[in-house]
Amino acid sequence: MASKINVRFLGTSAQIPSPNRNHTSILLTYKEENILIDCGEGTQTQFRKAKLNPGKITKILITHIHGDHTFGLPGLLSTLSFNEYKKTLHIYGPRGIKEYMKEFLGLFGIEKSYKIEVHEITKSGKFFDNKEFELHSEKMQHGIPTNAYFFKIKDKLRINKGKIKKSKLPNGPLLKKLIEGKDITYEKKKYKNKDLTYLENGKKISFVLDTLYNDKIIPFVKNSNLLICDSSFSSELKQQAKDHLHLTSEQDGMIAKKSKSEKLILTHISQRYEHKTKELLEDAKKHFKQVEVAKDLGEFII
Amino acid sequence: MASKINVRFLGTSAQIPSPNRNHTSILLTYKEENILIDCGEGTQTQFRKAKLNPGKITKILITHIHGDHTFGLPGLLSTLSFNEYKKTLHIYGPRGIKEYMKEFLGLFGIEKSYKIEVHEITKSGKFFDNKEFELHSEKMQHGIPTNAYFFKIKDKLRINKGKIKKSKLPNGPLLKKLIEGKDITYEKKKYKNKDLTYLENGKKISFVLDTLYNDKIIPFVKNSNLLICDSSFSSELKQQAKDHLHLTSEQDGMIAKKSKSEKLILTHISQRYEHKTKELLEDAKKHFKQVEVAKDLGEFII
Repeated sequence: MASKINVRFLGTSAQIPSPNRNHTSILLTYKEENILIDCGEGTQTQFRKAKLNPGKITKILITHIHGDHTFGLPGLLSTLSFNEYKKTLHIYGPRGIKEYMKEFLGLFGIEKSYKIEVHEITKSGKFFDNKEFELHSEKMQHGIPTNAYFFKIKDKLRINKGKIKKSKLPNGPLLKKLIEGKDITYEKKKYKNKDLTYLENGKKISFVLDTLYNDKIIPFVKNSNLLICDSSFSSELKQQAKDHLHLTSEQDGMIAKKSKSEKLILTHISQRYEHKTKELLEDAKKHFKQVEVAKDLGEFII
Repeated sequence: MASKINVRFLGTSAQIPSPNRNHTSILLTYKEENILIDCGEGTQTQFRKAKLNPGKITKILITHIHGDHTFGLPGLLSTLSFNEYKKTLHIYGPRGIKEYMKEFLGLFGIEKSYKIEVHEITKSGKFFDNKEFELHSEKMQHGIPTNAYFFKIKDKLRINKGKIKKSKLPNGPLLKKLIEGKDITYEKKKYKNKDLTYLENGKKISFVLDTLYNDKIIPFVKNSNLLICDSSFSSELKQQAKDHLHLTSEQDGMIAKKSKSEKLILTHISQRYEHKTKELLEDAKKHFKQVEVAKDLGEFII
């Protein structure tokens, strides 16, 4: 059984927070990895409300430097220092993030118990990988440099246990060869790799926050198990969405359908829809049924 | 009947916020005046929770530029702009506040619909007054430039209505002369001002946040109707309080007693006391009985 990916919505509001929706921040947890996507004002308090420890954060991905996605950074980074965070904190963001963070850290004079490495992602594609997973980015359109991101567990060859049992192959180095993709020989008999293994597709979680609709989105988020999208407006206000460089929930539904994604979560919810998120939901459902509106502290396990 | 002063605690935590205590911020409302004292992260959300409109703020007083007292400014100032605030916003703070706000506003590129005037208070004493009230500051000791503040309604001569009725003096210009402090003559009879008026003492609300105990505090807060004090530690941890340049709740009680204040409110509450604020209360009560521990969104009407 593969490890689970946990996606926790710490904040789900658009530009102005409400009593029930904090500014944007999402925590993705996979094994020891804790990746924070955006960090709106109040994120550290949301960690406390969710009974999560911000000291476990390993990476922060910033989609763009608008305040509703970043004004929680000074407080969070100060608190990490106060709590004697000891890791190197990796912060990734679009063009300009290095200069922003440099001025930012200088201004706030945050006394740090730890090292911060800021990575400017200026190209589309993979920007991080290890044995377990990959992180990819794509450029979006929101007036200032803006990235979409996805997290993907690597595809893995897995042993077909039933077939191994039948074949009476022994445990050990031979099976290891199989998951490395090799064919094997046992007691003079040849076994083909493809007959005894299957490919487990790594789960993919995509984050498309503030952006105007553009042609890069669908190929980028293709086959997402969880697709998280900016839903600042319903299609009733599609001209306003366009003017403000945001997606509509109908566009989100269309993206989910065309990208063959499994599940769509609408977030970045304006106070306009505080008591009528149904409107956003119905709008997305014109194209795609497996959709939910994110709630603060809401959790999805993939 | 004099107008009431309303003091609303928007945030009451020490350095690290908790699910129930946001970072420090207090709103003082008197007639059309809305004065915010400090602006920790999340203050704009606390306004929403309290169903208050941040667009009514007239002045912001910053005690010192530590993050737990200021990291709510970028979000609040952005939201005011988004909501088309049209007044001139006056921000007061200790030495260094001008440079801080200049870098701060530059970094965050807040698009402003309004003018901000930053006032650096480098001297002790009165720094603002109008017909209605005065604002005073005093220098505190907290490692960086730090001010304590008080708000005081001006003392006013009031007509003693009972005595006026007996005297049969007519309404109008004569009574106006009385509240200007003058003696009057009516139908050849002389009336002394002091016999027909009384002095109404203006209410005084004092804010002594992060500071080491020092001799300036008691004379500064003398005769406060409401005295709000840093209560980061109980006296059990008095050495720690001293090391971190904070007051203890016992010192707060002693200050309230010696300054002949009417009521004491303890705030800047550490998560250490989350479930034992009684300890702080008992500590203050060694000297002064009229004491409460502030709660987020708690309100005092004076």
